[in-house]
Amino acid sequence: MSSPSTSLLKEQTVLPADEVQLFNAVEDKYGGVMVYMEEPMDLNEGFSYHHAESDYLMLVYWIPDAPDTLPANASHIVGIGAFVMNDKREVLVVKEKNGFFKGKDVWKFPTGVVNQGEDICVAAIREVKEETGIDTEFMEILAFRQTHQQFLGKSDLFFVCMLRPLSFDIKKQDSEIAAAQWMPIDEYVNQTFNRKHKSFEYIAGICLTKSERNYGGFSAVPTPTSSGKLPYLYFSGKDFKPW
Amino acid sequence: MSSPSTSLLKEQTVLPADEVQLFNAVEDKYGGVMVYMEEPMDLNEGFSYHHAESDYLMLVYWIPDAPDTLPANASHIVGIGAFVMNDKREVLVVKEKNGFFKGKDVWKFPTGVVNQGEDICVAAIREVKEETGIDTEFMEILAFRQTHQQFLGKSDLFFVCMLRPLSFDIKKQDSEIAAAQWMPIDEYVNQTFNRKHKSFEYIAGICLTKSERNYGGFSAVPTPTSSGKLPYLYFSGKDFKPW
Repeated sequence: MSSPSTSLLKEQTVLPADEVQLFNAVEDKYGGVMVYMEEPMDLNEGFSYHHAESDYLMLVYWIPDAPDTLPANASHIVGIGAFVMNDKREVLVVKEKNGFFKGKDVWKFPTGVVNQGEDICVAAIREVKEETGIDTEFMEILAFRQTHQQFLGKSDLFFVCMLRPLSFDIKKQDSEIAAAQWMPIDEYVNQTFNRKHKSFEYIAGICLTKSERNYGGFSAVPTPTSSGKLPYLYFSGKDFKPW
Repeated sequence: MSSPSTSLLKEQTVLPADEVQLFNAVEDKYGGVMVYMEEPMDLNEGFSYHHAESDYLMLVYWIPDAPDTLPANASHIVGIGAFVMNDKREVLVVKEKNGFFKGKDVWKFPTGVVNQGEDICVAAIREVKEETGIDTEFMEILAFRQTHQQFLGKSDLFFVCMLRPLSFDIKKQDSEIAAAQWMPIDEYVNQTFNRKHKSFEYIAGICLTKSERNYGGFSAVPTPTSSGKLPYLYFSGKDFKPW
């Protein structure tokens, strides 16, 4: 039986010349053209996929003889973990209903994914609020970790953020969070899980160091650009004061 | 005239029941199934695009009534800038042939994109070698900047890396680099461009501070995981020593 896509190609092949349709295309600012396809297509014409979002698919075909210098597809997912400690040296911790920690008896920091277009320091405040109902103020990035081959081959950047609590009554989210509480920091650090897994042990150690004495994290400083944007620059605000 | 995609749908509609084909599907480890499509399809069946790489396109359709918790598409492109200074307080700088800096009289740090699956500290060494021929050793992350709405709506994380030069004779790359040289750091910092653009001014100021006195950057420490991977954790190695 002939497949639908074969039929599709045959139908195009036998079109009379006066019925041949040009793709609708617009020139882009890089000297190329963007073709907005109304129809599905296969990849027989030298095109390859560049990337897709939920409502569109981008195909690319590099015409010059020179090597392809198309911008790379996005390569990283970005996440945050939130270290929130109150004046009694208790840290805000949760147990998760799903994912890697499901069923494990581990109290962990609130964590979450930074949305496209969202600032890391804003995402940390949002995730803490969503999971525990606690309001916070962003203080510093204490550390970050880069891992590879996470979801579908993509890499992951995970930022450990220190936040100062502005409220204290926990209202946990029901769909993702099994339990939430304030826990003495030493009890958090000494959990068996944290002592068995090096990256958790190091991160817990960094947070304990920060709680006890001097530890130089990175502050978040909005930095105006000529295009009117205000991206955050993260650096040692203790050692460099631009104003 | 009927469009090819309309023909395609009609042809599917009139197939006799004994010729209806099931998609080839495999179950994945998240309790879903993955359908490998041999044919192009349109998005009328409730599917939406998730993402694409050059040789495949992933479509998703969330079946449960509950909110979609599919992992997000990758959201960030990651880049590096390399601060390389020799014993004479000269920094390694280049002029670019293409892109934003084309035709501008600006000496800048070697920069580049971190590949999917590549460590930031490895990418910095590679980019310096490719653009200038100089061998280096990674020292610290001095700062990073997050910007949004860069290429196709994606966000960008740019890491300022300090590296120590291990060789000194420049062999510049021809295709992307117009010129490369060692330049006194004060001359680099005081370029008109760097004084006019706040984020460049701050980054230059951070590098100058690092060259003159104490500035707490983040070291790169490989951290074993239970799965046998060795991801880098970046933190203040001066303030926290795990061994």
